[in-house]
Amino acid sequence: MKTLWTPLILVNFKTYTEGTGEKALRLAENAEKVSDKTDVCIALAPQYTDIRRLAQRGSLPIFAQHVDPIQAGSFTGYVLPDAVKSAGAIGTLVNHSERRVKLADIDAVVKRVRQLDLVSVVCTNNSHVSGAAAALNPDYLAIEPPELIGTGIPVSKAKPEIVTDSVKLTQNVNPEVIVLCGAGITKGDDVTAALKLGTQGVLVASGIVKAKNPDKVLLEFAEGATSV
Amino acid sequence: MKTLWTPLILVNFKTYTEGTGEKALRLAENAEKVSDKTDVCIALAPQYTDIRRLAQRGSLPIFAQHVDPIQAGSFTGYVLPDAVKSAGAIGTLVNHSERRVKLADIDAVVKRVRQLDLVSVVCTNNSHVSGAAAALNPDYLAIEPPELIGTGIPVSKAKPEIVTDSVKLTQNVNPEVIVLCGAGITKGDDVTAALKLGTQGVLVASGIVKAKNPDKVLLEFAEGATSV
Amino acid sequence: MKTLWTPLILVNFKTYTEGTGEKALRLAENAEKVSDKTDVCIALAPQYTDIRRLAQRGSLPIFAQHVDPIQAGSFTGYVLPDAVKSAGAIGTLVNHSERRVKLADIDAVVKRVRQLDLVSVVCTNNSHVSGAAAALNPDYLAIEPPELIGTGIPVSKAKPEIVTDSVKLTQNVNPEVIVLCGAGITKGDDVTAALKLGTQGVLVASGIVKAKNPDKVLLEFAEGATSV
Amino acid sequence: MKTLWTPLILVNFKTYTEGTGEKALRLAENAEKVSDKTDVCIALAPQYTDIRRLAQRGSLPIFAQHVDPIQAGSFTGYVLPDAVKSAGAIGTLVNHSERRVKLADIDAVVKRVRQLDLVSVVCTNNSHVSGAAAALNPDYLAIEPPELIGTGIPVSKAKPEIVTDSVKLTQNVNPEVIVLCGAGITKGDDVTAALKLGTQGVLVASGIVKAKNPDKVLLEFAEGATSV
Repeated sequence: MKTLWTPLILVNFKTYTEGTGEKALRLAENAEKVSDKTDVCIALAPQYTDIRRLAQRGSLPIFAQHVDPIQAGSFTGYVLPDAVKSAGAIGTLVNHSERRVKLADIDAVVKRVRQLDLVSVVCTNNSHVSGAAAALNPDYLAIEPPELIGTGIPVSKAKPEIVTDSVKLTQNVNPEVIVLCGAGITKGDDVTAALKLGTQGVLVASGIVKAKNPDKVLLEFAEGATSV
Repeated sequence: MKTLWTPLILVNFKTYTEGTGEKALRLAENAEKVSDKTDVCIALAPQYTDIRRLAQRGSLPIFAQHVDPIQAGSFTGYVLPDAVKSAGAIGTLVNHSERRVKLADIDAVVKRVRQLDLVSVVCTNNSHVSGAAAALNPDYLAIEPPELIGTGIPVSKAKPEIVTDSVKLTQNVNPEVIVLCGAGITKGDDVTAALKLGTQGVLVASGIVKAKNPDKVLLEFAEGATSV
Repeated sequence: MKTLWTPLILVNFKTYTEGTGEKALRLAENAEKVSDKTDVCIALAPQYTDIRRLAQRGSLPIFAQHVDPIQAGSFTGYVLPDAVKSAGAIGTLVNHSERRVKLADIDAVVKRVRQLDLVSVVCTNNSHVSGAAAALNPDYLAIEPPELIGTGIPVSKAKPEIVTDSVKLTQNVNPEVIVLCGAGITKGDDVTAALKLGTQGVLVASGIVKAKNPDKVLLEFAEGATSV
Repeated sequence: MKTLWTPLILVNFKTYTEGTGEKALRLAENAEKVSDKTDVCIALAPQYTDIRRLAQRGSLPIFAQHVDPIQAGSFTGYVLPDAVKSAGAIGTLVNHSERRVKLADIDAVVKRVRQLDLVSVVCTNNSHVSGAAAALNPDYLAIEPPELIGTGIPVSKAKPEIVTDSVKLTQNVNPEVIVLCGAGITKGDDVTAALKLGTQGVLVASGIVKAKNPDKVLLEFAEGATSV
């Protein structure tokens, strides 16, 4: 059985130095404290090599950043969904804007991940693509206009219609899919704004991982998520 | 202005020897005769290097087999949508099972092709993917279970539910999209069966291009398309 | 039998508007005049859809910008080496910096192209890669530091040691390979400088295709090539 | 400082079930015993998620199966060389036949890996490609004809000339590169034969990982490596 959290703050560590190895561990410890204090679910998507160590802490849900559309076998260098599960991940990002995936492979991954009782979060770049992703029946989708990623300009301000259109199209195509949004989110208010547009959480990266005080910003985010 | 034909028989020449160069020209001449005689639209998707010569005949609609999600610029070796248009193509296949495309790129190509007044035919491999493709608003979608391609076992017999589910999901998500089907179609009856399942045409390749008498089979197909 | 020209001016039309369709034809007409007047070989690499029309003029050698490592068969949307040959191309670029290719596929393409009596021009980005490419036994290699492409800063001035090292490594590994260079070449002097560094020609794109007077610049290039 | 071992038995766990999670740990324990007993270096290439746990045992050298040509930054889902190092890997496979890499990226990865004091093992598929790989100056190269991988027919028997030609070409191009060979190796004799052809070790996968008694076969391999 799989749990789906709302609201959800999902932190993507990317391949940032600030999110690798020992630093990934520090981020996780801070996130645990904020989650405990605020009772908001904070999930973490570290690099493959850090999944097991973060998952062993047993506290926050750990996601892979990507898995490949493969079964066990001869696939040297690829990321087996079963392997990230065996390392303790409970889900995976799919089709992040920095790791776009073929349509047929998104479908295959979402289905395989479901068989393994893992949670899928399919990333999308505009409202048409959100509609398409919803048809593939993932657990979550995360709309992130790529031109805003890493800018500090929140999608909820710069392009609110992309978020509301994504929510609307997803409702039409497949109302069971939970919509997150991301790109440019750096303050608690941005999280509140995102939820007010109809989403149920945020996907963030540099806003937390590269912040001077990640724990302070994360606390703001969690408070922003509960003040709606 | 763009014309959308129904029923449509769309013949993919792939990179078959039987569909390259002079042989592509022979196939086109035969297809013209059948189309004239039966009044069924037969469209042809030859290789890039044969597009202009076939289009110059001015008779049948010519499609590219693929175009890349690019604008004019520094993209050595890629296929510019504007270039296939300037060569006389009136549309393009997108995401054929042998040339799968990233979700975001299918969206970008469908939009770019529309700006250029070209027709898009997005290929899909199962009904979920058909629903997703429909959300991207192409002109046509062509459902082809990849495991049947080239087998001579028609999808309309082996997996009719994939076709009917694709038609149904497309109706729900975007009823303006015209559904074709393909894979394993070798006889006129297969075409009739495909139309009876709710499609408005077929996408074929080896069934015509590698047939001993392509013109005879093509005539059967066209008659099959009008006998519904 | 295949001819290998030196010195060679090879003009890559990329997917520039200025090198597509009718404009590709104009460029070819101008290049023919310059080649006739100066007796320098000017080869052209237009888009796939323009290969046949330019080749039919019968005057200058026409190259594809890329071909795929495939044999005739079920490869929808790919570029069959045999097809570009049947359209009249006499060779192909391989591994252009905008269309990088896997090592094993460069090897496969160079071998296939040789079987078809087509000429291969493998592009490289630094001297180590030039050494590697030479080991694969192409007819030509073209060293182009990608950071200089399209800048107007000629490699012969900015990084002459990349060119001389490429020439030296190629001599060591496989002295039969003819070395060209490219990137940032916009004047006749740049061509002269390139030949003085030990190359036997240039690979150019925007310097010609996007020039205000392509025929004037091309004439300068050809004169630069004969003034060494 | 980096150590380069000879002879080397490098075991690729691929994404086999038998080499994932707890089973990866069992394989490592067995390999440690064999290495202790025979004093032959056995290196292991598990999946990314298992690198840290195996490396923490501190006994055998652990390799990644692949790393991407990236620096720290915004590369969601990719494999950062620094991350596999921070997890304890001492090197990486590059360009395995199941994970082919672009020529320019092999060059970039070999250089990056060297900066990080990691060991590179570049895989090749024939002798020309071996010559090309040698020019890129990796620590090791591993020649594996892909058609023999997983067959149980050892390359040393089926195609000894590919191995000896690879050794010869590598000697000519870059004598510092250590040559391994792989594909179809299932017995101690196959290892001995490989060394007699001029290699200094083997790259194996199913022959060990999917063996009924991996420790018994591994012992045979190690004994085969010392009986030359």
